[in-house]
Amino acid sequence: MKRILLSIEYEGTGYSGWQRQQNGLAVQEVVERTLARVLKAPITITGASRTDAGVHALGQRAHFDTDANIPVEKWPYVLNTLLPGDIKVNHALLVDERLHARFSARQKTYEYRIFNRRQPSALRRNFSAFVPLPLEMELMRASLAPLMGRHDFSAFEAAGGTAKTKVRTLYEARLEQSGDEIILTLRGDAFLYNMVRIIAGTLIAIGQGKLAPDAFAKALASGDRLDLGITAPAQGLTLIAISYEDIP
Amino acid sequence: MKRILLSIEYEGTGYSGWQRQQNGLAVQEVVERTLARVLKAPITITGASRTDAGVHALGQRAHFDTDANIPVEKWPYVLNTLLPGDIKVNHALLVDERLHARFSARQKTYEYRIFNRRQPSALRRNFSAFVPLPLEMELMRASLAPLMGRHDFSAFEAAGGTAKTKVRTLYEARLEQSGDEIILTLRGDAFLYNMVRIIAGTLIAIGQGKLAPDAFAKALASGDRLDLGITAPAQGLTLIAISYEDIP
Repeated sequence: MKRILLSIEYEGTGYSGWQRQQNGLAVQEVVERTLARVLKAPITITGASRTDAGVHALGQRAHFDTDANIPVEKWPYVLNTLLPGDIKVNHALLVDERLHARFSARQKTYEYRIFNRRQPSALRRNFSAFVPLPLEMELMRASLAPLMGRHDFSAFEAAGGTAKTKVRTLYEARLEQSGDEIILTLRGDAFLYNMVRIIAGTLIAIGQGKLAPDAFAKALASGDRLDLGITAPAQGLTLIAISYEDIP
Repeated sequence: MKRILLSIEYEGTGYSGWQRQQNGLAVQEVVERTLARVLKAPITITGASRTDAGVHALGQRAHFDTDANIPVEKWPYVLNTLLPGDIKVNHALLVDERLHARFSARQKTYEYRIFNRRQPSALRRNFSAFVPLPLEMELMRASLAPLMGRHDFSAFEAAGGTAKTKVRTLYEARLEQSGDEIILTLRGDAFLYNMVRIIAGTLIAIGQGKLAPDAFAKALASGDRLDLGITAPAQGLTLIAISYEDIP
């Protein structure tokens, strides 16, 4: 058996999220069905990150085991011919069988996009959260500093999260402007359920003056979800990359 | 009667183009129906540019005449509440009744996006043309130079074009790289039918070595459509802006 690690790009708009579930069509299910057509046998793939409905990915990772005699560099071509336009495999790697897409992940990078203009955008509607009121960029940028490093992020988890420990390390928290879009980039060892969207929602509230600029510091100290803003909408979020030791 | 000039953003994916026609739903039709709901009377709007099916706009312009007692700055809010997510009004201006969205336009700016990577993109599929083979950026950039200025662009018009004179002036022809995307920006006084897509298709052929770098110069001299490449696909094209004299 060989273990193959895929890098998968998808637009989450039409899906119920990454993970196979009772209601709605999941990205995982579409990839598994496509693999099953190629292999002529049912197969399960293991994804690195369980993105929610409407959340996008540029570099989701997922592994599967097969003894099919297909050269690893052919997998993207074979799968992309059969996959729908909104799910594509960017590359495939042959990895050690001890590598696990989810448990071996070292770092994850997410991007959250805020569309900040008086009128909503037709072109960016599925890829950003629309915020019509002006935002104080510098206030927002400064507010992120306390999040950097290793902390107990208990306040930053939505109901339904199942993580045993809430300690996470944030390596990067960057805010950039590109035209009418404000882009938040977060890179960490792992993220709690809805953590990026809770940070984005809080950041928007800080930018509008609805929350104090020390909201993140306060929530880290209190562990209280109520010290933070609402969870920002799913369509602004994109899973950019997942990194592993010794893997390009 | 007051003349209102709208700036309209739309994703063309789901429409048969800007202009009302027998088959399929046109963007113009959706905007007219929405206006008619507000005004409680049928109305015709006049667009500046007849974009094809699948072509997008960031700043299409269209005018209509009304005696409705709605302050001009309220029009985007009124219309955007009723318009679908893929069509939005960015702003509205009260203009002189002699201003005509189409005939008074001084300059138009178009962007054509080429997605250049081995595997196709799920996220950018509706906003770029996919080209899997490597492209020679510098060759492509240099090839554009002869297009600048005032020329007879007869070779650059698709069948079905109705322009009487084929003389046009190109003020800007720029090629930039952004990640996996190559962005062609063209600004001119007006464009012939499919002219931007023919330039983009030729540029791709030059970048792949399928056409010589002097293809544009040759076609300007010969007036022969066959000296140019194929018309690049609609989804890579976005109408960025249209400018008028004394209008912001």
